[in-house]
Amino acid sequence: MRIGVFDSGLGGLTVLRAVREVLPGAEYIYLGDTARTPYGSKSRSTVVRYAKECAGFLWKFEIDLLIVACNTASSLALEELRQISPCPVMGTIEPAVRACLTKASAGPVGVIGTSATISSCVYQRRLRDINPTWQVVAKACPLFVPLVEEGLFDGEIAERIIEYYLQPLKERGLAAIILACTHYPLLAAGISAFLGPQVEIIDCAQAIAGEVASLPAVKGKNSQGGSPSLKYFVTDEPGKFNYLAGVLLEGCRVDAIKVESL
Amino acid sequence: MRIGVFDSGLGGLTVLRAVREVLPGAEYIYLGDTARTPYGSKSRSTVVRYAKECAGFLWKFEIDLLIVACNTASSLALEELRQISPCPVMGTIEPAVRACLTKASAGPVGVIGTSATISSCVYQRRLRDINPTWQVVAKACPLFVPLVEEGLFDGEIAERIIEYYLQPLKERGLAAIILACTHYPLLAAGISAFLGPQVEIIDCAQAIAGEVASLPAVKGKNSQGGSPSLKYFVTDEPGKFNYLAGVLLEGCRVDAIKVESL
Repeated sequence: MRIGVFDSGLGGLTVLRAVREVLPGAEYIYLGDTARTPYGSKSRSTVVRYAKECAGFLWKFEIDLLIVACNTASSLALEELRQISPCPVMGTIEPAVRACLTKASAGPVGVIGTSATISSCVYQRRLRDINPTWQVVAKACPLFVPLVEEGLFDGEIAERIIEYYLQPLKERGLAAIILACTHYPLLAAGISAFLGPQVEIIDCAQAIAGEVASLPAVKGKNSQGGSPSLKYFVTDEPGKFNYLAGVLLEGCRVDAIKVESL
Repeated sequence: MRIGVFDSGLGGLTVLRAVREVLPGAEYIYLGDTARTPYGSKSRSTVVRYAKECAGFLWKFEIDLLIVACNTASSLALEELRQISPCPVMGTIEPAVRACLTKASAGPVGVIGTSATISSCVYQRRLRDINPTWQVVAKACPLFVPLVEEGLFDGEIAERIIEYYLQPLKERGLAAIILACTHYPLLAAGISAFLGPQVEIIDCAQAIAGEVASLPAVKGKNSQGGSPSLKYFVTDEPGKFNYLAGVLLEGCRVDAIKVESL
């Protein structure tokens, strides 16, 4: 089977990696919209347009499943994509919300993400759909993505910025926190150190990987042979993406192809 | 006369404001490419393409002067724009470099900007063209733009990040530092406090404003009547731009028009 994955840039590689561990026999096509990244500070209409263009590029490969490995695009464009998609579409939100279920009665749930994700209120609504009495504390953390892209995963600057955003959440005594941005797992150690070990960290990449194998579109197909493969496409020059992807994927050689326009 | 100004987003408004103080009688058309911002982390070919599209939009208004109010676009695309422009093109680099001249003999000059601006080496080359013995210390500061956009102009996080980037420059005993990004003047107080009062801060907006009135394309035209006016265009939804532009322009009401495509 063939799976298409897109993100505004690099972050979705954390999702790709987690899904490949579960479905190593599939063909993967990854698209990073690096010429227009980030999505998280942009408006709904622009993110919807970009998400449709990314999906349209992947649909041409006759994919069996589309994974929207970007929380901003999942929050703002998932319904629009599902309405026009020729294949099933999996986003980040539902798997992450279901991964919270085991923590439902233990205390408030935090959600952190980009400005666009948090102001869309999609996570907040989905969590309350499951349990209307759930306390949800949401917070946009716009400096986390640039911090990760600068490689400052730990140290004093990372600690100060984590404290700046998460102090109000810490005071609420969270049971769990959803890292509703694919970059944030790279700050998970610092976030966990600040909030304390009693707060369960929910990573969307792991949540998606935990559900993908049981999707009707996937079940049984993985063993149907075919040649496992992995192709990367980007919209900006691939140099920086290849380098950072190599770091993120722990030494894998990445040789992305530039798409002139979507 | 009619002046077109573009930037990847908001930062160029600092240039627009400074130029309007010198030439209040002109018509201004400002374009912020907010759907694709930032430019500073992107490749040369992508920034050149975007800059040409922005300029092309402004040329349709039959402008008498194009101001590239973005250091990244000035560093990567100014020559390409000049080759095809029907009107004179003013960038940020030459005015800032000339503003350094008075400091030529006093010590090393620092240049700070986006990754794309610094790795282009355009500032470094231009400074050495003027004086080959000049010591130039250049440093990319990728977290400064998100810091400004988050409104963290001062306080402990800003101080730590300023120290993180500028400590090596401080040790060189700079005579002057060029803020080679239109966002950075909003951090000028913190930068000056860290480097000390002996380091002259060179702001591109002021440098451009200091030269614009003496350009042949401008001389004498300002007093030719016409109706001074100001129009803003953006490529993403205008809400956030209008709000932040109002803050940046100290309460001016900004009512930008969204351009569907460039």
